[in-house]
Formats: sequence, structure tokens, C-alpha cells
Amino acid sequence: MKVGFIGLGRMGQGMAGRILGAGHDLVIYDQIPKLLTALGQAGATVATSVAEAAADREVVIDMLPHDAALESLVFSAGGLLDCLPKGAIHMPMGTHGIEIIRRLTQAHEEAGQILVAGHVLGRPDLAAAGQLSIVPGGPAEILRNLQPLFDVLGKQTFVAGAEPQAATAVKIAHNFVLGCAIEVIGEGMSLIRKYGVEPSLFHQVLTKGLFGAPAYEVYGQIIVDEAYDKVGASVQIGIKDANLALAAGEAVGVPLPSCNVMRDRLLGAVAHGDGECDWAVMAREQARASGLE
Amino acid sequence: MKVGFIGLGRMGQGMAGRILGAGHDLVIYDQIPKLLTALGQAGATVATSVAEAAADREVVIDMLPHDAALESLVFSAGGLLDCLPKGAIHMPMGTHGIEIIRRLTQAHEEAGQILVAGHVLGRPDLAAAGQLSIVPGGPAEILRNLQPLFDVLGKQTFVAGAEPQAATAVKIAHNFVLGCAIEVIGEGMSLIRKYGVEPSLFHQVLTKGLFGAPAYEVYGQIIVDEAYDKVGASVQIGIKDANLALAAGEAVGVPLPSCNVMRDRLLGAVAHGDGECDWAVMAREQARASGLE
Amino acid sequence: MKVGFIGLGRMGQGMAGRILGAGHDLVIYDQIPKLLTALGQAGATVATSVAEAAADREVVIDMLPHDAALESLVFSAGGLLDCLPKGAIHMPMGTHGIEIIRRLTQAHEEAGQILVAGHVLGRPDLAAAGQLSIVPGGPAEILRNLQPLFDVLGKQTFVAGAEPQAATAVKIAHNFVLGCAIEVIGEGMSLIRKYGVEPSLFHQVLTKGLFGAPAYEVYGQIIVDEAYDKVGASVQIGIKDANLALAAGEAVGVPLPSCNVMRDRLLGAVAHGDGECDWAVMAREQARASGLE
Amino acid sequence: MKVGFIGLGRMGQGMAGRILGAGHDLVIYDQIPKLLTALGQAGATVATSVAEAAADREVVIDMLPHDAALESLVFSAGGLLDCLPKGAIHMPMGTHGIEIIRRLTQAHEEAGQILVAGHVLGRPDLAAAGQLSIVPGGPAEILRNLQPLFDVLGKQTFVAGAEPQAATAVKIAHNFVLGCAIEVIGEGMSLIRKYGVEPSLFHQVLTKGLFGAPAYEVYGQIIVDEAYDKVGASVQIGIKDANLALAAGEAVGVPLPSCNVMRDRLLGAVAHGDGECDWAVMAREQARASGLE
Repeated sequence: MKVGFIGLGRMGQGMAGRILGAGHDLVIYDQIPKLLTALGQAGATVATSVAEAAADREVVIDMLPHDAALESLVFSAGGLLDCLPKGAIHMPMGTHGIEIIRRLTQAHEEAGQILVAGHVLGRPDLAAAGQLSIVPGGPAEILRNLQPLFDVLGKQTFVAGAEPQAATAVKIAHNFVLGCAIEVIGEGMSLIRKYGVEPSLFHQVLTKGLFGAPAYEVYGQIIVDEAYDKVGASVQIGIKDANLALAAGEAVGVPLPSCNVMRDRLLGAVAHGDGECDWAVMAREQARASGLE
Repeated sequence: MKVGFIGLGRMGQGMAGRILGAGHDLVIYDQIPKLLTALGQAGATVATSVAEAAADREVVIDMLPHDAALESLVFSAGGLLDCLPKGAIHMPMGTHGIEIIRRLTQAHEEAGQILVAGHVLGRPDLAAAGQLSIVPGGPAEILRNLQPLFDVLGKQTFVAGAEPQAATAVKIAHNFVLGCAIEVIGEGMSLIRKYGVEPSLFHQVLTKGLFGAPAYEVYGQIIVDEAYDKVGASVQIGIKDANLALAAGEAVGVPLPSCNVMRDRLLGAVAHGDGECDWAVMAREQARASGLE
Repeated sequence: MKVGFIGLGRMGQGMAGRILGAGHDLVIYDQIPKLLTALGQAGATVATSVAEAAADREVVIDMLPHDAALESLVFSAGGLLDCLPKGAIHMPMGTHGIEIIRRLTQAHEEAGQILVAGHVLGRPDLAAAGQLSIVPGGPAEILRNLQPLFDVLGKQTFVAGAEPQAATAVKIAHNFVLGCAIEVIGEGMSLIRKYGVEPSLFHQVLTKGLFGAPAYEVYGQIIVDEAYDKVGASVQIGIKDANLALAAGEAVGVPLPSCNVMRDRLLGAVAHGDGECDWAVMAREQARASGLE
Repeated sequence: MKVGFIGLGRMGQGMAGRILGAGHDLVIYDQIPKLLTALGQAGATVATSVAEAAADREVVIDMLPHDAALESLVFSAGGLLDCLPKGAIHMPMGTHGIEIIRRLTQAHEEAGQILVAGHVLGRPDLAAAGQLSIVPGGPAEILRNLQPLFDVLGKQTFVAGAEPQAATAVKIAHNFVLGCAIEVIGEGMSLIRKYGVEPSLFHQVLTKGLFGAPAYEVYGQIIVDEAYDKVGASVQIGIKDANLALAAGEAVGVPLPSCNVMRDRLLGAVAHGDGECDWAVMAREQARASGLE
């Protein structure tokens, strides 16, 4: 396929590399030119503008860090809305809010273009290995046509529904479930510590029992080791994720009280100077709230 | 070992059967005589009072449904405190609160007896198969002597610490983590449903990803199937567990906001007539709170 | 009337003094004999047992600090249930839980006695001045007969209903509303402090506007002055009140999420060493949670 | 003074009328021309653009419904930033978020203009009567010069601080305290109703005791009367206020758990079709959550 790829950060780098490696015709673009060097040398066409990255493409993928960047990409003068060919597909694959995805869906449709959401689960190492999970949302036929790309990027695809926002909701809900799991581990850890139990013992009870899954294994271990300085997702990203969930809930009348708890814990971490730590530092903030630190 | 076993309900039946099957000298007692028939026929000695069940025993195990039953067993006239031999062990294996375990620890010690907590994780079928997880708390040497019993009852043992209440805290924290996981799945499910996503799709995203563990697989499936009438643990038991966690937190100054959320959801289920359902009905109560039912 | 009064603490002292001063025939009793001296010298008959305090009385009032004391007063051997004359009234006026009031109501009825709840709002100085608010619950005719006592003790009477527990619920709900008001002031204070606003300014905005009432005036001022060491109601009493409210809610299927927030804040205060302070210290605990202390 | 006034809705109408009545030189503007008729006939100069409303003015006041309107007023082409004279004052008096006020403060300063926040407490009838409470924030000298305007508009002025955002925080915190008070009344009402107590009785206990202030008198009465269809502030405005408070807290690391409770209640009201009611309908939503409706 003729693919454009915009946003060559850590995730984008690995994903675009997979697409190129699979033999697709790839044009890449990023506001930071040096991010384009490696893939350019590997055979990708390096664009110097959004317009170049979109011209004659069947699909333009973007992997951007927040809604503001996505909004700018699409709606600014010379943005995707202006330069994406009619009938072509725009597929954001980063984590975004419901509202921006809704606006893009409508705007692209009015412009004769197609918006598909292609959210992913997984970190940069999985992206580079094509082992992501893909959660796309959009018209069934369009998604079928994109399946070869999904197969290159991920190990499994979960079609959320015919509306892009369905996929967005799944992605947001997934991160919400993860954040709450971390919060709850932290609460449990503070409780058992006050009774003289070793965190590692409780971690074993969980992971060798009903909770033997990566979410608990990985984050439980970070909490046991208090390894909060090695940052996967930061407290700030956690707050962003919490806000996306709360906004998604608000838009459809769904209270999410567990999300409030997670968000408050993250804010407390910021208040106590842990804002740049991994979001598993929620467990330390809970310990602090319990008089343990 | 010379073992007394009091409380032959669904869990106790399986556990006592394992002990008998392993060749231990077993005396059994329950207030409901018919619960003693099967094991009596299988070779256990049937006692007609707590005193008979405790006389000359090295260890008396009990498996009782709540703190009031345990308090009565120990502190009432002719109870365990009166009739357990000096130097013998009393090991409650049900789910109990911190405060009763503390009181028993002290009372037995003053009477020259030994209190060991032997909480278990797992349901009746696992109990009958000797596949429970055992979380004991008590003096290390005593626990070593009890290890043959743990090996017969469970597949793995997690020694919480030298104080019985350490084990109690672990058991309580474990159930708390489970209840919160169910609550959070429910919140996520309501969110994605409002965006037109099938619950089963979200269940797959979770369990084929970071949450591929029994807690999410089993309870997620119950929620997908809305199979709340097949009751494993009821809403009422969930409320009891939540209260145990909140009391345990209060006793040591640990706020557990996620537990509040779970408890409120369970109370809401009661308010709307779902009090006798499986506690996974939290997901339906969340749906109700979101205007989905 | 022939009145017995049990529990001559700070509140009871003032209340019993009012009753005596109004010319009623008063017998007093307390487990701590020296608490009886002053009123004995003033003309009250000093009893040396509950039985003496109840014999031939039309009504026995008690003012006890917690449910355990009330349970013991009524249900222990030689307690009120045994020695209160048939047809006589027992009126607890302290703060108690729904469950104990329900049990007393039933037990007294079965014994041919009458339980009336006579909860009060106000502190010792108001008690001594007969300026309490009385919230009684019980059969209308009985309450009418007790009105002369209410008039001596209080400035106003709010009849909650024909069941004693109705009054108990009102008393519990009242304290809950107060505790939450303090919590919310504390949250607001932390917020405005972070924006450089003086707490006293915010206190004025509230009390010279929509919140010009004692709850906000008094507690707001304590918070502005950080005068937490002068203890009216302590953190521990606050936790007791929160637990009474949560138990009352649980008994009838009412989630009280604001009460959870208050309770968690009070637990946090305990965790950080403020357990003996006035419960307005919730505001300091909130400040701590916000990184302000 | 030479005053421009933009935004002649219900609040603005009354406020601008007061300014005109006090003899100030008033230019008015609104996107909806018919809103300008009455004051134009009364002597105000009617502008047909923001530029006209700002030209040669010492101070331009606006009273707009939300941040988007304020942003547009200032930052759009031909907006206040372009046409307000150097040295002149822009004073938003509506309810806005911290972030927009910060941005305006900086932008106006860079343009040689002055931003002062002049938030008000009170509804349209108080606005028309000059009985608002004014909460201004800005440089002390500037505020002193504006005092004659404050005196015309309000009965009292509470200077929050030298930074405009200080006043914004006070306004936001005030509304937050009010919303939480309503939520807590609602929780208490559901509790006592379940025990057979009349809402009006509980309302009296509160307002004739520690809570004898307009917040409780007015909103308690609305709740007693279930008069939710007469809308002062709607659920949607309540959600907006809650979001402003949560965002203000997030910006400075202050968790506001009581605000979460209020917001969830309001979202529940939306989910159950009460989104257009007065925000006191939180009490009905709480009743619903308690199985009472």
C-alpha cells in the first residue's frame, strides 16, 4: 500500500519500520527532521511537509503524543484536511480523546476522506517487533483493506466497531483498567505492610493466584522494587489517561468513581514531587497517605 | 497428627476430607449433625460437642462463616478457650477480621494455647482437590510442624509472618484486590457499551493482553454473560469482605478509597434488589448507575 | 417526674442538673462515684447501682459515650432490662448506632418496657444552659409525656418519628452533614492556598455569603487559625460518627460516598499523628495530601 | 469612568444597568443585537463590534457564559487583544477556569493592557439590585481605581490577591463548596428517608441548628419540595463548575475527592435524564442510587 506515516517518536519509529520492512511504499514525516534519518536511509521517502506526506497516499497514519498535536495536524492550514486525497484514509494510532476523534470523523467525512481509528496496546519494544495489539474502529470494509497493515504491526487485532470512537473508547477503557489495577495493588500493599507483611510475599500471593497476568506481574514487581525512576508511562501520562477516561464518561453519562481514585492518587504524587516518576509510584503515594513514608 | 475440625460446610467438608484421606487422626464437629455423616462413615470420629472435638487434639481447625461464629466457638462457656489442651494449636482457616484474630491470639496465649491463622484462597472444588493456596501466620516453628497439613490441603503455602494477623491482612487484602478488579471491569464495561462496543470484545482485549489471569477471565466472562444468578460469592459476602478491609485499614491508619467504591457499588446492588446475586453484579449496578438498565 | 439518670460525664452533668433544677425527682448513677458528688449535694438521690437508679422510675435517661457502654447497661446481668419497671421508659440520649437502638427497642418491648430515643444536638455548655436541640423518636403519646423534660433540656424539639431509630438516623445524618462540611471547607482551603489566597479571605467569602451559619463560621475559623489542639470533637469521635453513618447506610442500602471521603481524611489524620486533634484537622490532612505541609 | 460592557445576558443586563444608572459613560455590545435595545434606550451607547466597544475605554467588562466565548472575545481577529487601548483594563466577571485567566493575564500584559478578574457571587436579581459579592483579583492600585464600579455592582468586595487567578480560584472554590453542600444534603436526605423520617423535618434540624444559612435553607427547601424543574443553575452548569474545580486542582496538585463525588452524582443525573434540571436534582439522583425512586 501507499502509506504515509507522521510522528516518528519511539512508537512511530518501530511501527513505520515494520511497514517499510513489509515492502509497503512508505513516506515519512516529522517536525523534527533528525527522527527521519534512520528510516530514510532504510528506504523510506522523507517528506518535508504534511502535504508531501499525504500526496497520493492511500492511507496516512499518525502516531502523536496528544490531542493538540493531532488537532494541529488535521485542522491547521495545509494540514491533512486540506491535502489528504479524496477517498484516502487517515488513521491516528496514538492515544486520543473521544471528542477529537468525533470531530475528525465528521470533518474528514465532509471532506470526502475517511477517518479510521487504529489504537494500539503495547510499548516501543513490542512496536518494533510487530507484537502490538491493534484496536481499530471504522467501516468494516475499510478495516478489511487495512488488515495487511495490522498484521505487520501487531500480533492480534480487535475490531471495536464501525465507528472510530468505539476503538477510542476501548483504548481509553483499557488504560483506565490498568491504572486502577496499579492503584489497587498500591492500596493493598500499604495495608499488608502495616501488618508486617513483606510486599514481595503479597506480590506472590496475587501473581501465583488469580492475578497471574502481566499487569500485576510487571507493576507489582515495580512496586515491590520501588523502581519508580525507570519510567515506562509517567505520572503525567497517567493523569492524561485518567482525564481521557473521565471525559469519555462525561460525554455519555458514565460515572467512573475508580478513575477518580486513580486520578487523585496521581495528583497527590505530583503534589509530593513524584510527577516525573513511573505511574506505578501511585503505590508510594498511597504509602505516604498511610503514614508509611 | 491428631486433628480436630469444626465447621463442615462446603469448604470444610472438602478440607476435612483431604486431612482424613491423608491418614491423620481426625475428629469432626458441627452444630448441624447431618453435616458430619459422610465423613463419619468415611472414618472420622464424630464429636457431639466442641469439648469432644478438642480433647487431646494437637490442632483444632475451624472453618466458620463469620466472626460471630468464631467468637462463640472460642469464648462461649465450654468453648475452645476452656477445652483446648495447653500447648495445642487453634487454627481458624475461614475469612475473618483483624480484631477477632488479635483477640484470639491474646486469649489463647494467656490460656497457654497457640493461635495460628491459616487462611485459604480458593473455592470448594479446589478445597476438595487439595488445590487451595494457604496463607498461614504464626510462629515459624509451629508453622513448620503444620506444613504436612498445608501440603494436604493446598498446592502452595505463603507464610505471611510470625503474627497470625499478618496472614489475616493478606487474606483481606487479596479479597479487596479481587473485588476492586470486578468493580473496575464493570466501570470499563459500562463505558465501552455506551460507545457501541460489545462487552465480549472488551473482555478479549483485556484477557488476551495484560489481564490474562483468572480474576479477569472468570469475572469478565460472568459479566459478559450477565450470569449473576449463579452465585459463587454473593453481594452480601462482598460487603462483608469490604467491611473487613475497611476495618483492617482503620485499625492501622490506611485509607482504602478503592474499597469505598466497591462497597458503595455493592450497597447499590442491594438497594436495587440484587443482594442475593453473585458479587460480579457490581457490573450491572454500574450499568444501572450509567442509565444503561 | 420520677427520673433516673445514668452517665454523668460532661454532657450528662449539665442535663441532669437541668432536670434537678426543674424540680423533678432525680436519681443519678455513674460507675465513677465522684461524678455524682456535685449533683448529690444539690439534692439528687445518689444510687450505687443500675438497679437502684431504675427502681420505681418513670423514665431512666442515659448519656453514654458509645454503643458498648449502652449494650452493657441494658443487657448485662442486673442491667436495665432486668430492673426497669414494666411500663417505664428507657431513653438513651447519647449518640448511638442504628443496630443497638433497634435491639434495645425490641428487647425493651419484649420486657414490657418502652424504648425512646432522645438524641441531642449541642455541646456541654448548651446542655448546662438547657439550650440543646432534642431529636426524639418513639410513640407520639410517650413523647408528649416527655415534653416537659425536653423543654427543660433544650430550646427546641424535633420529633423524628414513631420509631426510636428514626431519631437515631437524624442524629447520625446530622453529624455526617457536619463532618462533610468540614471536609469540603478543607478541600477548598487547600485549593485557594495554592493560588496564593489567604484562608481568612475565603472564610469571609463563605460566611458573609451563602454559608453564614455556625457550622461554617466555627469550623472555618478553627481551620483559619489552625487551632486543632483545642478539641471539641476529636478525630477519633469523627471516625466513630462516620462509621455510624456508613453502618446506618448499609443497613438500608444507601451508599454515602461523601462519608467515605470524610472517613478517609480522618484516617489519614490518624496515620499522620493527628488522631487526638479536633476533627477540623481534616483541613490540615487535606493540605498534607496537597503537598502544602 | 469610560466603561465597555460585553455580554448582555441575564447577569450582564442587570450589571450594565447598574453602571449606567450610576452615571458612567457606558458602551455596550453583544452578538445578539436585541439584547442591547433596552439599555440603549436607557442611554448606553450601542456598539456594533468588539472594536467599537473597546475603543477609548478605560475598562472593558465582559460577562460571558464559558471559556470558549471568552477565548474568542480576546484572541480572535479583531478581538480585545487587538483593539483594547494600551493601559486599559479588561475585566472578565463571569465564571471561568484558571487556565484561560492565566493565558489572558499574560497575553494582555504582553500587549500593554491589564487583566483584572472580577468574579461575582449572586444571581440575576442580585445583579440588578447591585447586591452581588465581588471577588476581584489584580494589582492593588488597579483594584482601588475600580472600587467605584464594585460599589455600584455589589454590596461587598473581597479582594483575593494581586494575581487575577487568585480571584478565579476563590470563585471556583466557592461554587465547589456549594455543590458539595447540596450533594451532602442529598445523601443525608436519602438516609433519613429510609428510616421513615420526613425530609422537611431533617431540613428543619439542619437550618434551625448549625446550618442556618442560605445554601442550606434554599437548596434544602428545593430538595424537600423536589422543585427541580425550576432551574437556577442546571446540572450541566454544575458539571462545568465541577470540571473547573478539578482542573484548578490538577494545575496545582490538589486532589478534591468531594468534587469527584459531586461530579459523579451530576453525571448520574444526566444518565437518568435529569440533565436539564436544577443541580439540586443531585438529591434525586442520590435517592435513585439508594433505590428510593
